[in-house]
Amino acid sequence: MNWHPVYLSAVLKADYAFAQAHLLPHFLEALKAHSLGLLKVETPHAQAAVDGIQALRAFVAPHYDPAVEDLFFTLDRELSRHSPVGAGALRTALSRNDLDMTVYRLSARAHLMTALSDLSGLRRTLLELATRERGTLMVAFSHHQPAQPTTLGHYLLAVESALSRDTARLHGALERLNFCPLGAVAMTGSSHPLDRDYTARLLGFSGPIENTFDAVSAGDWQTELAGALSTCAVNLSRTLYDLLNWAAQGLLTLADGLVQGSSVMPQKRNPVALEHARTRFSKVLGYAQALTFSNHNVPYGDINDPGTDAQEPLWLMWQDFSQGVRLLSASLEDPQIDRGRWRELTEHSDTTLTELADTLARQTGDFRQAHAVAQALLKTLHTDGRSLQQATDDDVRALGVAVADGTVAAALNPDAFVQRRTTLGGPAPEPLRVQTERAELRLRQDTAQQATWQAGFDAAEERLWTVKTL
Amino acid sequence: MNWHPVYLSAVLKADYAFAQAHLLPHFLEALKAHSLGLLKVETPHAQAAVDGIQALRAFVAPHYDPAVEDLFFTLDRELSRHSPVGAGALRTALSRNDLDMTVYRLSARAHLMTALSDLSGLRRTLLELATRERGTLMVAFSHHQPAQPTTLGHYLLAVESALSRDTARLHGALERLNFCPLGAVAMTGSSHPLDRDYTARLLGFSGPIENTFDAVSAGDWQTELAGALSTCAVNLSRTLYDLLNWAAQGLLTLADGLVQGSSVMPQKRNPVALEHARTRFSKVLGYAQALTFSNHNVPYGDINDPGTDAQEPLWLMWQDFSQGVRLLSASLEDPQIDRGRWRELTEHSDTTLTELADTLARQTGDFRQAHAVAQALLKTLHTDGRSLQQATDDDVRALGVAVADGTVAAALNPDAFVQRRTTLGGPAPEPLRVQTERAELRLRQDTAQQATWQAGFDAAEERLWTVKTL
Amino acid sequence: MNWHPVYLSAVLKADYAFAQAHLLPHFLEALKAHSLGLLKVETPHAQAAVDGIQALRAFVAPHYDPAVEDLFFTLDRELSRHSPVGAGALRTALSRNDLDMTVYRLSARAHLMTALSDLSGLRRTLLELATRERGTLMVAFSHHQPAQPTTLGHYLLAVESALSRDTARLHGALERLNFCPLGAVAMTGSSHPLDRDYTARLLGFSGPIENTFDAVSAGDWQTELAGALSTCAVNLSRTLYDLLNWAAQGLLTLADGLVQGSSVMPQKRNPVALEHARTRFSKVLGYAQALTFSNHNVPYGDINDPGTDAQEPLWLMWQDFSQGVRLLSASLEDPQIDRGRWRELTEHSDTTLTELADTLARQTGDFRQAHAVAQALLKTLHTDGRSLQQATDDDVRALGVAVADGTVAAALNPDAFVQRRTTLGGPAPEPLRVQTERAELRLRQDTAQQATWQAGFDAAEERLWTVKTL
Amino acid sequence: MNWHPVYLSAVLKADYAFAQAHLLPHFLEALKAHSLGLLKVETPHAQAAVDGIQALRAFVAPHYDPAVEDLFFTLDRELSRHSPVGAGALRTALSRNDLDMTVYRLSARAHLMTALSDLSGLRRTLLELATRERGTLMVAFSHHQPAQPTTLGHYLLAVESALSRDTARLHGALERLNFCPLGAVAMTGSSHPLDRDYTARLLGFSGPIENTFDAVSAGDWQTELAGALSTCAVNLSRTLYDLLNWAAQGLLTLADGLVQGSSVMPQKRNPVALEHARTRFSKVLGYAQALTFSNHNVPYGDINDPGTDAQEPLWLMWQDFSQGVRLLSASLEDPQIDRGRWRELTEHSDTTLTELADTLARQTGDFRQAHAVAQALLKTLHTDGRSLQQATDDDVRALGVAVADGTVAAALNPDAFVQRRTTLGGPAPEPLRVQTERAELRLRQDTAQQATWQAGFDAAEERLWTVKTL
Repeated sequence: MNWHPVYLSAVLKADYAFAQAHLLPHFLEALKAHSLGLLKVETPHAQAAVDGIQALRAFVAPHYDPAVEDLFFTLDRELSRHSPVGAGALRTALSRNDLDMTVYRLSARAHLMTALSDLSGLRRTLLELATRERGTLMVAFSHHQPAQPTTLGHYLLAVESALSRDTARLHGALERLNFCPLGAVAMTGSSHPLDRDYTARLLGFSGPIENTFDAVSAGDWQTELAGALSTCAVNLSRTLYDLLNWAAQGLLTLADGLVQGSSVMPQKRNPVALEHARTRFSKVLGYAQALTFSNHNVPYGDINDPGTDAQEPLWLMWQDFSQGVRLLSASLEDPQIDRGRWRELTEHSDTTLTELADTLARQTGDFRQAHAVAQALLKTLHTDGRSLQQATDDDVRALGVAVADGTVAAALNPDAFVQRRTTLGGPAPEPLRVQTERAELRLRQDTAQQATWQAGFDAAEERLWTVKTL
Repeated sequence: MNWHPVYLSAVLKADYAFAQAHLLPHFLEALKAHSLGLLKVETPHAQAAVDGIQALRAFVAPHYDPAVEDLFFTLDRELSRHSPVGAGALRTALSRNDLDMTVYRLSARAHLMTALSDLSGLRRTLLELATRERGTLMVAFSHHQPAQPTTLGHYLLAVESALSRDTARLHGALERLNFCPLGAVAMTGSSHPLDRDYTARLLGFSGPIENTFDAVSAGDWQTELAGALSTCAVNLSRTLYDLLNWAAQGLLTLADGLVQGSSVMPQKRNPVALEHARTRFSKVLGYAQALTFSNHNVPYGDINDPGTDAQEPLWLMWQDFSQGVRLLSASLEDPQIDRGRWRELTEHSDTTLTELADTLARQTGDFRQAHAVAQALLKTLHTDGRSLQQATDDDVRALGVAVADGTVAAALNPDAFVQRRTTLGGPAPEPLRVQTERAELRLRQDTAQQATWQAGFDAAEERLWTVKTL
Repeated sequence: MNWHPVYLSAVLKADYAFAQAHLLPHFLEALKAHSLGLLKVETPHAQAAVDGIQALRAFVAPHYDPAVEDLFFTLDRELSRHSPVGAGALRTALSRNDLDMTVYRLSARAHLMTALSDLSGLRRTLLELATRERGTLMVAFSHHQPAQPTTLGHYLLAVESALSRDTARLHGALERLNFCPLGAVAMTGSSHPLDRDYTARLLGFSGPIENTFDAVSAGDWQTELAGALSTCAVNLSRTLYDLLNWAAQGLLTLADGLVQGSSVMPQKRNPVALEHARTRFSKVLGYAQALTFSNHNVPYGDINDPGTDAQEPLWLMWQDFSQGVRLLSASLEDPQIDRGRWRELTEHSDTTLTELADTLARQTGDFRQAHAVAQALLKTLHTDGRSLQQATDDDVRALGVAVADGTVAAALNPDAFVQRRTTLGGPAPEPLRVQTERAELRLRQDTAQQATWQAGFDAAEERLWTVKTL
Repeated sequence: MNWHPVYLSAVLKADYAFAQAHLLPHFLEALKAHSLGLLKVETPHAQAAVDGIQALRAFVAPHYDPAVEDLFFTLDRELSRHSPVGAGALRTALSRNDLDMTVYRLSARAHLMTALSDLSGLRRTLLELATRERGTLMVAFSHHQPAQPTTLGHYLLAVESALSRDTARLHGALERLNFCPLGAVAMTGSSHPLDRDYTARLLGFSGPIENTFDAVSAGDWQTELAGALSTCAVNLSRTLYDLLNWAAQGLLTLADGLVQGSSVMPQKRNPVALEHARTRFSKVLGYAQALTFSNHNVPYGDINDPGTDAQEPLWLMWQDFSQGVRLLSASLEDPQIDRGRWRELTEHSDTTLTELADTLARQTGDFRQAHAVAQALLKTLHTDGRSLQQATDDDVRALGVAVADGTVAAALNPDAFVQRRTTLGGPAPEPLRVQTERAELRLRQDTAQQATWQAGFDAAEERLWTVKTL
């Protein structure tokens, strides 16, 4: 074939190199399953096809040869060298359409399991750090202003909560992804008898994708994955905002192996692991969009857009997602937390004022008015050049509100603030303990579910290569 | 307050107008639940708050008044006019942070129920049309070339299959969305006792969002919805590609009420309902990105980005999604299908050639060679200026393959092609019947599940306004 | 016409309402120009058309009437009531295709002039603040770590530099936008003689878009605008990152009219004007994507995607962009800058260490080694529990480097650091003065160029309505 | 250095490999210019630095060594092996901040020149095909319905017009990109004297980026490029829609070297070069978004987001853009156009009806009424089961309109339709000739401008390596 040089370099060689590097084992798995499927329905010479593919299991793909178009035809050629009869039979009721889509789903499934495992690792890291720092006072901000004291443990449990939802989204995506296109052939199935349930099970799929047109056309599993990873990526971009902000103030310091210096500024110790994690998530969002664009305003049918050509952005998306999650996990494995500085910031902020209002409201039943009194107090203090910590009971009394001795000091203490926030899900020790237990349980359940999936896939793969005849 | 004129017009007035038009009932619901919650934990004057909110149920929000900042404070003022004591009590353990997030989730939940209902409607329409056109021959294309015959029913069932997965994604999103932020107050809960389970149930939520920091900070429910609607939107953009292509060729004609003419070209009957549906989905994708950007690289905490300011793009996304789905449903309610022209195209394409190869392969067990023979046959015919339909058994025999009389004609008949595609999920009548039954069952189940959700929400709302004391 | 109810509400009524609110004057302008164009080529009854449109100049569009489809036909009906002959003539060589595209460009041009004016305002504000704060010491960060001292003026001039490039991009977009589709009719022009140069000039366009197919099909002016506004939006999102960060630390405080409090936390003064500006730019990016999607994988020809249906996202994009720029301008008009605190941070950072290395390198000619010495010094100090400010000449000498008395103190002084940075474009007073002068000149030139454009548009509009016959 | 294994593999090794493959020559150029700049201001040992870099010109970067962090320090180490004095001097007033940004701009400039050259090639191809097919009748569609006859040449000239605007956008981007960050050092310049104009000129830049903070921080050149390529990509996605649609109908057939078959359907000849071009442009849009996200809500200062970590998506964007443009060019070099089929479609459509209305309007001066008559005629014909081509003068007369003999036939002839469209920019031979001439001129001018830029860059590079001392 005399390929146009542009087509040869921009498409054929590039696609071959990608398939060679990333997809070859999945091609062999799918072909093995297909050959066993042919044997199951007593296709002539199917055993030769089975034997031939089995022999190819350790095949190393050679350099690209324009005479054979792609990896599939490279395998076809290799097989026909060893077993012309097997090669001829293997092509029965098989198209690159259903084969490719099967391979792409097998590949996505493997990447998804890695992503789930990376996320579990990060959640584990978060829970450990949350436990370690459960009592570390911090100022929670809202609208970029100091708002209320809480603990670092409380914050980190919030992050883990969001990640547990991200995990659930990925499990949902996996459930919908794990169906098998094999047997759809070009898009209408075949006049040859086929047992699609059998081949699907051989590959560890939950079953076949029923409608054969759907099987070769659907791209929604890609955009669902893109959406789920994007949601997780923006979730984590927010955490990174906070972590980098803390690092900028010296509240959090990364371990040495995650820090880079400057070629010109001798004092620099840059928390670059976090910064690179942020960029990874930004790129995930762009690569996810590449998948959306690839699925946008194209025919519903077999085309390259959500097929072969979507594999590069998918791969980039998985890679950057994993790198981002791992960089973040690494950063939180054992960061140095400047608890003293954090406490100091808490004590010198005005963030306990809510509790003074709450205290007054408990006396009067009128939070609206209590809020106004607290504001007036702060105004008075600022006018006098005093800080909130210097407020006294008399200051409040001067505003016409009767308070018992010690009321103000008790209300403005940040430790007491946190201790009193015993609301379900709040930062006080008891609700924090409950949250941690639930988070641990949830993580164990998710990890167990992942292990079950993985064991199923591993067992299927083991069986696939063990079965050599029926 | 002397607001800066830019802030007044660009933010305060605009936000008020939006809340007035779209969120007021949800504010009242959330406040009613909060007041009952206060009563439950025996907060002083809570009954006055309950009574006050009950009296406000039919409140009509006035024009914006800069003195009261926003809709919450408008309600606060109104309440304090009628019941100063109730107004004072209502503010106990309540922040705009948890209140707003509760309102936004109530609003999203209502929109999501509408979207699910719209999707069910479209799936119903698709199944009806698929049943009507189950035997309508069509050419399936791949890579923009005629590929194989199938039936319009088969194609439409594929589209419905994809939509059933979209429905599942939205159900997953609903499950994760339907938790209640109330009681998180600013972000640490309160020193006031609160029964968050109680208020959550009052509002029809599955429960509270446990971690209070998470409750006011999380934006992942927005990006999950954005991702789920985007996936559905690109799915449907592909179907629209095909429908508009068929309309361009006169294979499909919309009903008169969905067609517009031209001011200059007297013959025009433009299938604009489909075109506008396409644009709706393109816009959904952009509005979804606005939500991703709003959640990107911002602090994990209470901020406006995934809060107040995300409500406009959310609303636009829901609106365009519903419009797109409804325009598509309307277009497929009773389109005119030119079955004769479709059959003609099928008969004059070369798309049955696969079956000839299949037939030969059944004889020889070698599809690889059969494929080559079929290609050689076509080449011969084209050289002779003949079409595939004119091929004879002798043409095949001339290529060295022995065939029984009538083989070629039988293989090349498009009706036979479809009849023989009995693979699970294929276009032959029997698998099509099975698919349709399963699709009907699936749709009934999904619709029932939606009805259950809706009934729960309706009952909660009914109860919320019925309960006036404990 | 019996419109399908979905089509009626989702498309016809919505489009009419939009056109009524935003496009009516541009429709009248374009029709006036077209009617004069017909007169110019001596079209029968053209004068009646001219007179009719002139009479409609102050037309108030009524509520939507399904009988007339859209705003164009509403004008057509109104005109035919007053002048049937004029109405008949006006339709000569006119299509909604070329008319709509002309209207959309007129509308975009007006919005673009507003955006340019908003940007000039922000640049003016930045230059004034930069001048006021030209000597305000600040720590410049890199990789989220304190890096080197500079001045707030230097930083603000950098921001203005970026905005001057944004302005240039918008001028480029204006140059390419300002061509007239009128006369392209449906897409092939007309068999009627037309003077496209004349009508283009009447509307203040630089000329007609030559190719008539291009005239009604092109959407690149929309995506160019989307790209230019997106670039400016992300530019400014970065400045907002810094400003909000400074506000969080109390280094910058907004004027009262731009600040909101909390319903629960009495101490809160949130810099919400900046936060809302950030969300505006996030939304601009999403709305810009809606335009990209609308232009993606659709036919190159007259369709609704980059036409009627793109007007809503365009409008949203313009609106949010202007709001964002104005909120940012308002915030920087007269913010409170805590110069003392900023100086304190500078003095207590290690950010002058580069200058010590520079100083040593000046002696030895070896920056590489000087950098190592400076790092070693810092390490020693930290080991001793001393800060960089406590470093002495002897500390350096102890590392084997001979220095003159006073070297270390001189090198570590932040004011001196800045004074010495006399590199072109650096923060020292002289280069800062030069930069400011150039920025002022550049802004004056840009503003003058905008004024020239605007004067041209105004003059054309004035003339358009003055000319009543030829 | 004991790097964390995650940081080592995900960041350091990956970045090194990228720099090694794509950026090394630009690093050497920038370092050569910097060393000459040091020599110019009489920095001690600068000549040693110059000589050292000169000797490194053909340096081959070794495998990654964790001891040296990155490519810069690899060069630093290599230089210090040969010339410790030169290595020490070279580091004077140099930071990876300004160096990296200089390298990234040099790299982007080279890619941009390639993109411009690719676009010129496509425009040349389009003009040649437009000239060849200037008289090929085709049906122009609007809203997915046959609209009017035009010629393929007219359509192709419209596409070229859009591309000429894309070229102008890229020229604008080049003008703004081509400024030099060198001398900004970390972000405040240096206390060392520097001649930034000199180093900028040595590297072929138009000058230095004045503000030193801007120099190391700006990412707008990236998002401008992303926007310009996105606009071009969506432009071309629309052309590809049409081309693939024509290919699907057999109106256009690609050369053999651009077509792939099917593994299962023997008749397939898929126009995959066009399909892959479409996917390239979809991916460009996603990669462009990765750049937007990388610049979104990050500090305005030196960070990795629009720096090192943006280089991968930039590179992907350039690669896919070039591949898309080249695949499209290749497809249009010598496609087979089925002129007969295209004429047949034109003659059997109703698309000349506009001209009949125009003809009647010329008689009556009332296009509105003429349009109604034409519609009525078509209705009558359809009722009678006749096609538009069968319409007679009497048919029109029967509708109450007097016409001369032969009027109808003359009006409905598609060749005549085109011949009469002599409007500026229309499809008649004369305006088409004018358009082609202008397009040729425009392309020659653009190509000349590119050649001038390129010559400047080449001359600068030549000089850079020739100058060895001052």
